Amino acid sequence: MKSPLIIINLKTYAEGTGEGAHRIAAAAEDVMQESGVTIGVAPSFMDLHPISYHYEIPVYAQHVDGITPGAHTGQVLAEAVRHSGAKGTLINHSERRLTLADVDSGVRAASRAGLETVVCTNNPSTSAAAAAFAPDYVAIEPPELIGSGVSVSKADPGIIEDSVKSVKKINDNVGVLAGAGISTGDCVKIAIGLGCSGVLLASGVVKADDPAEALRELISLI
Amino acid sequence: MKSPLIIINLKTYAEGTGEGAHRIAAAAEDVMQESGVTIGVAPSFMDLHPISYHYEIPVYAQHVDGITPGAHTGQVLAEAVRHSGAKGTLINHSERRLTLADVDSGVRAASRAGLETVVCTNNPSTSAAAAAFAPDYVAIEPPELIGSGVSVSKADPGIIEDSVKSVKKINDNVGVLAGAGISTGDCVKIAIGLGCSGVLLASGVVKADDPAEALRELISLI
Amino acid sequence: MKSPLIIINLKTYAEGTGEGAHRIAAAAEDVMQESGVTIGVAPSFMDLHPISYHYEIPVYAQHVDGITPGAHTGQVLAEAVRHSGAKGTLINHSERRLTLADVDSGVRAASRAGLETVVCTNNPSTSAAAAAFAPDYVAIEPPELIGSGVSVSKADPGIIEDSVKSVKKINDNVGVLAGAGISTGDCVKIAIGLGCSGVLLASGVVKADDPAEALRELISLI
Amino acid sequence: MKSPLIIINLKTYAEGTGEGAHRIAAAAEDVMQESGVTIGVAPSFMDLHPISYHYEIPVYAQHVDGITPGAHTGQVLAEAVRHSGAKGTLINHSERRLTLADVDSGVRAASRAGLETVVCTNNPSTSAAAAAFAPDYVAIEPPELIGSGVSVSKADPGIIEDSVKSVKKINDNVGVLAGAGISTGDCVKIAIGLGCSGVLLASGVVKADDPAEALRELISLI
Repeated sequence: MKSPLIIINLKTYAEGTGEGAHRIAAAAEDVMQESGVTIGVAPSFMDLHPISYHYEIPVYAQHVDGITPGAHTGQVLAEAVRHSGAKGTLINHSERRLTLADVDSGVRAASRAGLETVVCTNNPSTSAAAAAFAPDYVAIEPPELIGSGVSVSKADPGIIEDSVKSVKKINDNVGVLAGAGISTGDCVKIAIGLGCSGVLLASGVVKADDPAEALRELISLI
Repeated sequence: MKSPLIIINLKTYAEGTGEGAHRIAAAAEDVMQESGVTIGVAPSFMDLHPISYHYEIPVYAQHVDGITPGAHTGQVLAEAVRHSGAKGTLINHSERRLTLADVDSGVRAASRAGLETVVCTNNPSTSAAAAAFAPDYVAIEPPELIGSGVSVSKADPGIIEDSVKSVKKINDNVGVLAGAGISTGDCVKIAIGLGCSGVLLASGVVKADDPAEALRELISLI
Repeated sequence: MKSPLIIINLKTYAEGTGEGAHRIAAAAEDVMQESGVTIGVAPSFMDLHPISYHYEIPVYAQHVDGITPGAHTGQVLAEAVRHSGAKGTLINHSERRLTLADVDSGVRAASRAGLETVVCTNNPSTSAAAAAFAPDYVAIEPPELIGSGVSVSKADPGIIEDSVKSVKKINDNVGVLAGAGISTGDCVKIAIGLGCSGVLLASGVVKADDPAEALRELISLI
Repeated sequence: MKSPLIIINLKTYAEGTGEGAHRIAAAAEDVMQESGVTIGVAPSFMDLHPISYHYEIPVYAQHVDGITPGAHTGQVLAEAVRHSGAKGTLINHSERRLTLADVDSGVRAASRAGLETVVCTNNPSTSAAAAAFAPDYVAIEPPELIGSGVSVSKADPGIIEDSVKSVKKINDNVGVLAGAGISTGDCVKIAIGLGCSGVLLASGVVKADDPAEALRELISLI
């Protein structure tokens, strides 16, 4: 059986940028090696290259644009992300929403470049729509719970269940990640019990005093 | 059997604004009455009120925002569109793209206000995604053909077929409109033959010397 | 001496839409006639036409796009706003921010159509930048005070003074309006004492039980 | 006297990404060392780190967001750009336009992080507005000439003259770079003769068979 996937979004937190990114990535690598659970990080674009080359963990961009090589400035080219050593990318995070057409072209661009795709959504109907693009994962994050410390799996398990159902109905090959407020092993266990392939989280690990301990606790009930 | 639906998008064409909007709406009303084919217009926001109250045709907004009444400036509230007398609204036109989450909330807002919803898309996969929101119609318009004078039904019937298929697979109650380059009765006939419920067009009628004649020609082979 | 200008932004408040817009506009007309102070309203796009034709007050759009007539859908054409009977328009409100280039083209489009222009800004440096486009007014609204009930003129008179100074240094013909939290005659008096030509406000009047009374109180110390 | 500044925007050109970025940066380093003219490159975010550490040239990001460290995903934090080794950043390029408020906050964020700021504009009035934010440089690029092979300095020297005049009138410390279509030593000479501090260019060097030769030609008449 495939390991659950834990992705830590480093955002632009001070604790997750530069030296901070190395600190979290090192913790992820340690816990991944000792547990066998897949733990990835999504650092800033500038940290993709150094983090990808220094650690044996999957690294994700936080965003890609649905473009081909050419005259685009300040945009994120999927091939350049891949070349940096990243394994995949988030697309359409609630803090970087894309148009319907750009979610489609972003998934295509990432797939073309050999990147794993994680499309972020906010409810069962946008999760269903995202599944129509056949990404590797849909990550459902109710916006009101992001950074709240209240996990979606405890506050609103129904939204996870409905999202899993609606995604699988459209395309059974698309995995579902639960996001927003995930902070304990219990949250992760519930999410997986509801049919999720893993979780997407951020502050719970990035802002922890001891990120490795926070990760060990998160995967303790898997 | 239900009549096909012809929607004329007046955009911000000089010929479709103010007096121009009245001219097109009058032509639509004439041809609708003599033929029984449903012909609607989508004028500017400012023309929604006068056109809705002067003509016996369905009137559509060109866009609504996925908001509830409150502190939003320069946004388009679905209830205000409905109050103006409009029957429905376009959402996510290629000249006014919305985020995935905003297409969802736009459809919800319009439905809440009692507006018919027409979500515009650009290919079969975005059409499938749009169908997940259960709008009344998905209008498929390959961007490269918009305003080209080359109709999608002749240049690329496969894209219409695939869109109809992918939309119906997700939700059989969602109608499909063909858009982009529609200009003759033949284009309309082909689109309907491929499973469309109607067409969305613009310059072919708005810029015609005689809009009523252009409309008569468009519906001549239905 | 020219009368101060009071603009009431109706936003998409339920109390300022449809019948609500008529109620506020009627109150503005009454108080403008009895006092001689210029009182305008900025209703939704759909209400521009009916409100402009029913009331003898200046009417403003909440936004225009920097476009010329042509193939734009769901955009707001300045000529269509003017044709609806509006006298002017807000541009770049904090709830409808535009790019630097679009503020420029929006001011040009509005001026071309004969509309008075009110560019909204958030601090002295964006006020200076906006003045470089030579609009009729710059309306300075510190975002953190919008809808707060705490007026900018009381909470942060320095930001108004600095904005007036920086605007006048760039172009002495550009008037300054104070916005954000304006709710009493005192706020208006202070703003005018600091060199403002008037105020831009919203909830203080729109949500008042008696909008005419709220307006009378606002202008009582001028 | 200070050297003119030549910035090569690598955009997302295939020839300017990954190995391509190294090739252009190596050429820039060679020509900078032999000539003493300052030559910088603006690679993709992912290439900022490797290019900054491998070459003795000024490196610029193509964009920064006006944010502080915190919960932002897929955004570009100025401190992370600085930490990557970059010296400065473009802001508001025509292919990555920002709101008026975000140009202001972007310049503040970059300055706070110790980055040199180059705000891109499209005409004399947006150049004046940009100068109000006191960036290090304003880069004027008429959009219709970008990538055209027709240089702004030859096609429309008046727009450069007017931009230099309007920028210096607002803030004499802000330098002006000429962009769009720059491809020969003559273009560079004219721009500097009109008061510019340098040029911003892209395809002319990035797509050259021999980037070092292209650079030598560009600076040959300084």
